[in-house]
Amino acid sequence: MEPQSSNPATSFSYEDFFVGQQFVSSTHLVDQQQIIAFATEFDPQPFHTDPEAAKDTLFQGMVASGWHTAAVTMRLLNSSGLTIVGGMIGAGAELTWPIPTRPGFLLQVETEVIELRVLRSRSDRGLVTIRSQTKNQHGEVVMTLVARLFVPRQSR
Amino acid sequence: MEPQSSNPATSFSYEDFFVGQQFVSSTHLVDQQQIIAFATEFDPQPFHTDPEAAKDTLFQGMVASGWHTAAVTMRLLNSSGLTIVGGMIGAGAELTWPIPTRPGFLLQVETEVIELRVLRSRSDRGLVTIRSQTKNQHGEVVMTLVARLFVPRQSR
Repeated sequence: MEPQSSNPATSFSYEDFFVGQQFVSSTHLVDQQQIIAFATEFDPQPFHTDPEAAKDTLFQGMVASGWHTAAVTMRLLNSSGLTIVGGMIGAGAELTWPIPTRPGFLLQVETEVIELRVLRSRSDRGLVTIRSQTKNQHGEVVMTLVARLFVPRQSR
Repeated sequence: MEPQSSNPATSFSYEDFFVGQQFVSSTHLVDQQQIIAFATEFDPQPFHTDPEAAKDTLFQGMVASGWHTAAVTMRLLNSSGLTIVGGMIGAGAELTWPIPTRPGFLLQVETEVIELRVLRSRSDRGLVTIRSQTKNQHGEVVMTLVARLFVPRQSR
């Protein structure tokens, strides 16, 4: 099998997934401008929007909104070769933010398939659970994500 | 006690929270332009970015990225009177998206405190768990969020 991350044109059905399957995304550099732009719209707290005021907060400097880290993670997931027939559609997710994303972090997402489940209620779709780690250039984890994705089964 | 939602200037310490406490946010109207702008940057899938192509997808029309719904929810949480000393800082979260957010949805977030826990490792902070429901103008839930927030204890 080709490494999935090198062939983003392939679209996966439920049958193409297996537990332990891995995907690695491209990278994205988060800078202060992006942090301020996202936070101004969605999470306007001083440690996300004001470099001076941020120094006097718990974080002692600027950090990205956790929801910004999540959004960048989604963008990177879309570039990791994890391309699903009909699109990447999530039923739910669990997130942790072990450390915040700071300006200058180069983020990359490593993903593993951890569970496959056929839906009793829907014979045409299955549930694929993935676990992703979003890391910076030093290998530090800024976010963990466990997501349950609806994935079409192959029509036979 | 004043209803918290009417007094966003009050900042809460751990001691100000109690299980069953409720907060109601202001509202935010999600339109197609916002959906496309967010998705173009973070989740460029046809059902989020292309009104024509979206018709031929599972959703049969445009829907917001689930991460966009989460970001709008954070913005509304910031306006719900749930103002915490030092800022709203999350350790982790669990999300579900029962139905997608569509253009024209007027979103509002209802939040309840469901657990309070003192941290053994940190005497200066506690963990406040909230459960939020993000609803549209018809009362339909587009997102549920359970979030664990770090909250400073009052210095005595």
